[in-house]
Amino acid sequence: PDGLVCPKREVKRFTDLSTDETSDLWVTAKEVGVRLEQYHKASSLTFAIQDGPQAGQTVPHVHIHVIPRKKGDFENNDEIYDIDVKEKELKEKLDLDVERKDRTMEEMSHEANEYRALFS
Amino acid sequence: PDGLVCPKREVKRFTDLSTDETSDLWVTAKEVGVRLEQYHKASSLTFAIQDGPQAGQTVPHVHIHVIPRKKGDFENNDEIYDIDVKEKELKEKLDLDVERKDRTMEEMSHEANEYRALFS
Repeated sequence: PDGLVCPKREVKRFTDLSTDETSDLWVTAKEVGVRLEQYHKASSLTFAIQDGPQAGQTVPHVHIHVIPRKKGDFENNDEIYDIDVKEKELKEKLDLDVERKDRTMEEMSHEANEYRALFS
Repeated sequence: PDGLVCPKREVKRFTDLSTDETSDLWVTAKEVGVRLEQYHKASSLTFAIQDGPQAGQTVPHVHIHVIPRKKGDFENNDEIYDIDVKEKELKEKLDLDVERKDRTMEEMSHEANEYRALFS
């Protein structure tokens, strides 16, 4: 259920953004976070930028991941080592830029419509 | 070698910050990132906020993690499952708010001095 926020101008690195672009991007991401957290009845948020290929960036257009977090989803840090049961969730949490092949076009379309309503 | 950037005003949630505070915080984090990447001869950066306890936040004062990234440090996403050899690094990467008990006071003091010079 995570959101992506990106600037209009297509630049690769976060550090290439101007001061105004940096502000706009993060003020927007904050607002997106507030609404996603509420919508998903979550209680925390993870914000992350993979700034450059060595940080896991696969799309060369800077973007912020906004991930609603809930109690128990990944809270206990030791759970991440329990890969037998947690591998799938872990993969989804960490491979932020990998396409989720297990979601159908219909599911994605549904979510897009829900989010559109949320931000209009 | 990661950096922490926090606003002067002590608020718990990122989403509690005003527009001006959000801008200042991220413009500063961007500048910190540029310098840390250069200093550590890195080629990418991970920026992250653990916004709330369910996102792993343990210190109730919003802060940005700025982590210089290099080729091979964690690049291959599949490496994260190779916990036999990678557990320690993985732990350090993900337990962002856990104190690194394996660092001595002397090492931390040295790094603080280096960073002080970098930003003065």
